[in-house]
Formats: sequence, C-alpha cells, structure tokens
Amino acid sequence: MPEDHDVLIIGGGPAGITAGLYCSRDRLETLLIERGLIGGMINEAEKVDNYPGFPEGISGTELTQLMHQQATRYGLKTIYIDVIALQVKNKSMTVKTTSGSFGSRAVIIASGSERQKLGIPGEKEYTGKGVSYCATCDAPFFNGKTVAIVGGGNAAIYEALHLAKFAAKVFLIHRRDQLRATAIVQERAFAEPKIEFLWNTVVDAIEGGKTVENLNLRQVTDGKKYTLKVSGVFIAIGIKANTGFLKGVLALDKRGCIVVNERMETSVPGIFAAGDIRSNSIGQVVAAAGDGATAALYAKNFIES
Amino acid sequence: MPEDHDVLIIGGGPAGITAGLYCSRDRLETLLIERGLIGGMINEAEKVDNYPGFPEGISGTELTQLMHQQATRYGLKTIYIDVIALQVKNKSMTVKTTSGSFGSRAVIIASGSERQKLGIPGEKEYTGKGVSYCATCDAPFFNGKTVAIVGGGNAAIYEALHLAKFAAKVFLIHRRDQLRATAIVQERAFAEPKIEFLWNTVVDAIEGGKTVENLNLRQVTDGKKYTLKVSGVFIAIGIKANTGFLKGVLALDKRGCIVVNERMETSVPGIFAAGDIRSNSIGQVVAAAGDGATAALYAKNFIES
Repeated sequence: MPEDHDVLIIGGGPAGITAGLYCSRDRLETLLIERGLIGGMINEAEKVDNYPGFPEGISGTELTQLMHQQATRYGLKTIYIDVIALQVKNKSMTVKTTSGSFGSRAVIIASGSERQKLGIPGEKEYTGKGVSYCATCDAPFFNGKTVAIVGGGNAAIYEALHLAKFAAKVFLIHRRDQLRATAIVQERAFAEPKIEFLWNTVVDAIEGGKTVENLNLRQVTDGKKYTLKVSGVFIAIGIKANTGFLKGVLALDKRGCIVVNERMETSVPGIFAAGDIRSNSIGQVVAAAGDGATAALYAKNFIES
Repeated sequence: MPEDHDVLIIGGGPAGITAGLYCSRDRLETLLIERGLIGGMINEAEKVDNYPGFPEGISGTELTQLMHQQATRYGLKTIYIDVIALQVKNKSMTVKTTSGSFGSRAVIIASGSERQKLGIPGEKEYTGKGVSYCATCDAPFFNGKTVAIVGGGNAAIYEALHLAKFAAKVFLIHRRDQLRATAIVQERAFAEPKIEFLWNTVVDAIEGGKTVENLNLRQVTDGKKYTLKVSGVFIAIGIKANTGFLKGVLALDKRGCIVVNERMETSVPGIFAAGDIRSNSIGQVVAAAGDGATAALYAKNFIES
C-alpha cells in the first residue's frame, strides 16, 4: 500500500480530533477517519461541566464542533467511512475501510468505547435527559434528588457511592442477589445509608415527560412488576471497547482496551492509541484530548526518527 | 501529621488546576498549593492556538484563569506558598511548606518544569514578543520570517526542523563547533537548506522595539561581535524539572522528571504526578490538563480502596 499520508487517525471524538489538530499544526499529511458523527460518545452529553476552560459548561456537541473547526483550520482532512482492518508491514501501515484502503507511516487509534446499553424502551429517548452512563460527569445535576443505578460490578458501586454524595437517595438495581464488586467496595456501599439495594430486579422500561420520571421494574424471582419514581437513572453494566478490528494486531488488556505506556505507544511501533480505547483511560473529554496530543507528538517523533 | 485533606495538589498550572477541578467535583477535601501565579509557565504565552475548544486561540493567562474559576466554583481551595518537602509515612503524606505542614491521604505533584533561560538582557522583556521556548506552540506565528534558535541538542534540532516548515530562514546558534544531537537528527538538519549554522557563537543580548528585531552575537573563538536581524528567537538549551524537593522520595528519570505509568501513578502508592513534571510529558496545556484529570481519578480510587 502506498503511504498516501503521514498519519491516519481512526475515530473523530476528542482524542482523534486533538491528535488531528496537533498533527496538522506540525504539517503532517493527516487524515481523520470517522464512521458516524464527529464528537463520538460525548455528543450524548447535554452539558459538559468538567472540560477545563468552560466554567459555565458547554454541550458535548458544541465542544467537539469547536475542536473540529480548530483542527480543520490547521489543515486536518476528515472522511466518514467505516474502518474494517489495520495491517502493519515493516514500517508501513494500511487501514482498510468500506471505501478502499489508505496507507500511512503512523496510525493513531482513537475509536473510543461504547457504554453497554440496556436496550429497553425509553433508554435512548431519555439519554442526556435523566439517563446517564457517567456519574463522574453528571452526578452534580442530581443534587438532593432520587436516582437509580443499574449494575452490580465495581464500576456500578463506585458510581453509586459517588451519587450518594449528591443525591438524597440512590437505588441500586441489580438482576442478581449478590454483587460482582470486590468485598471492600461492597462494604462501603452497604454502610452508606442513602443507598438502597433492589436485588433480583431488572428495568423493563424508562418513562417520563420531558425528563425521566419512572422506572418500570420487574422482580426476576416472582415476576412481580412495580414502578419506581426517580429523577435519573445511571446505567453501569460495562463498557465495550471498539477494538474488534484489532484482534491479533495489538496487545489488548482484559477489558479489550489497547495497552499503552505514558507516551501512548502501543505494542507495535508506529501505532499509537488515545482516549477511551487505551488501557486505564478515565473516560473523560480532557484526558482523551490530552492523550490525542501526546500520541500526535510521539507519532511525529516516530516518523522523523 | 493529621490528614487535614483528602488530596494536596502541588502546583497551579493546567495540570494542577484540572486535578483540583476533578477532585473538588468528586467532593474530596482538596487544597491546591501554588508558589507564584496561577497558570504557571503558560502565562508566558500571549496566544495559545492549540488548546482544543478555542478555534481562535486564547491567551495563556485567560485560559488558566477560566480553568481556575471553574475549579473554584466546585469548591477547590488555593493557597500561595512554597513547598519545601514531601514526606510519606505508611499511607499518610505530609507536605512541608514555608508556612507550616499539611497532611493528606494522597498527593498530586504538578509543579511543572521551567525552560532553562539564557539570562541575557532582553530575554525576559521579549518573552512572548519574539522570544519563545516552544516551537511546537509558536512556529506558525513566524510564517515566512527569519528566526534564530539557540541550542545544540536534539530538542534544538527538532525545533529548528519544525521552524523550517514555517520560517523563510532559520539560524541555529550554538556555542560549540559541533552538535550534541544524535547523528540521524543532525543529518536531517544539515540537509535542510533553510537552516544556517552559526558555530562557536553565543547571544549577548536580545534587542528590538515592540517585538524582537536583533540579536547581539559574539564568536567565542575570536571575540568578534556582530548583529543578526531576526523576527524571533527560540531558546532550546534544556528544561529544568522542579523536582529538587523530591530527591530520595520518588523515582525520577534522567532528566529529573517523575516516572509515571499511564495512570499517572509514581513509584510511591498515593503519590501521583501530572503535566510537565512527569516522564515523557509533551509540555502542552491539553496534555497537562488530561494528566491532571487522570491523576485525580486514580487518587480518588486510591483513597477509597
């Protein structure tokens, strides 16, 4: 494959856009490949309060549009297609897409991750309107209110404990009769008076007006159905790294994320990863953007050395 | 030392402020300790063009003031004193300052680094007005102009090559008759027609009107003095990590930066590092801010586990 580009960036969220901004400012021939909408998962956030520099908050869509406008201003090109494979031969990379192949001297993978969805009525409709997949991001919006969290792993318990600092009441809804979370984390949750556990329970639907108002619950043991009044519901049933196309190419961790060091270098020289898709990412816009800048600078060093 | 705080943050640049924003939003008792001005080294930048979200650029001071305002809004407290020592006993940390000691359960070190200064007349006066310590940041401002770069190591050559993509002419001023940079990097510089080498030469003073206009040069071999007309001068004679107070406490790399992994964990549990002071930092605002967020989340996990 001829090396049409210096750098190919897979994924147009904050990590990929920032990598594109830095590569383009460094006069590298750079192509950003996005399969859907620019912005990625942060488009779901109606208000981002924790991206430094915007004290009053900014919508996820507006923020990533500003970022993309900035990168484009410095020459970043973007195309909208699906990536299906990444191949490495010697120091040459080939990215195969649904519309042909592209060659480059370095690749930055920033294709993100997705929160696992419940797949129930109302979930999609109320996302950003009471349905959230990130307590770190959205807990302060539910000060003094009643919320629910769905899940039973460490992430769900950490989010429940975090929510308890803001909400008046936190229902933890779990489909089994015990948690998957580690003991010490469980103990802390049991000791928190604001958290009430609803065991053997699943959510059938999310209902409301302009925002979430009710959850339709069902006990799996006896099939009993009832309604729970909440202002918000946090879904923490796992994340899914978008790394299907990377199996056998790069070292992945047990969650399917790409193993990196603090330079965002992966196990293959010339391939970098940034944002939610990298190992131990905190899943926050500013961290993803920082990763993107770091990956871009080390990609440049790789090309020039 | 009693643990007055959950988290102490040393240094109020973008890394420290963002760590403070995240810790405060997580309802951790957090104290930011800054020895000088909020913002740190980025205050020197008249315009930051590569912080994602500000397509038209923003001044370094304005950007960090917005960040600090945002963190303060969520409860971050800031004090202005010098840190002199960091002690760790079991899982308890003590930060000694010029105004007493503070205890905490986790520490985030974000005390940055400083570019080595030449220490010559005009250097301080024209910083941000033609004198720059960062080609990655400022090269695009010198499109089609004549610039000089002072230094002979890898960083200086990389900056010279980067400047050559923008400037019409780049003088590389080095006090010795050969470069310290690695061979392959030297070869690339020698092959770049825009770069002219001024060997055995030092800068005695930087002069100008509103911005830089002239360098007063001196040949160290024969003492001959002359003037060089330039629009800008980049100084790349090394960086100095502010890690004097950390000797014997944490693992440092050969440049004196704090060794971290991709979670910003240092060699001591409960101590995290973020921004320019950490190993392999790219010295950019967005990367420092991202590091700060990452350090904050893992500090929270450390405290709660």
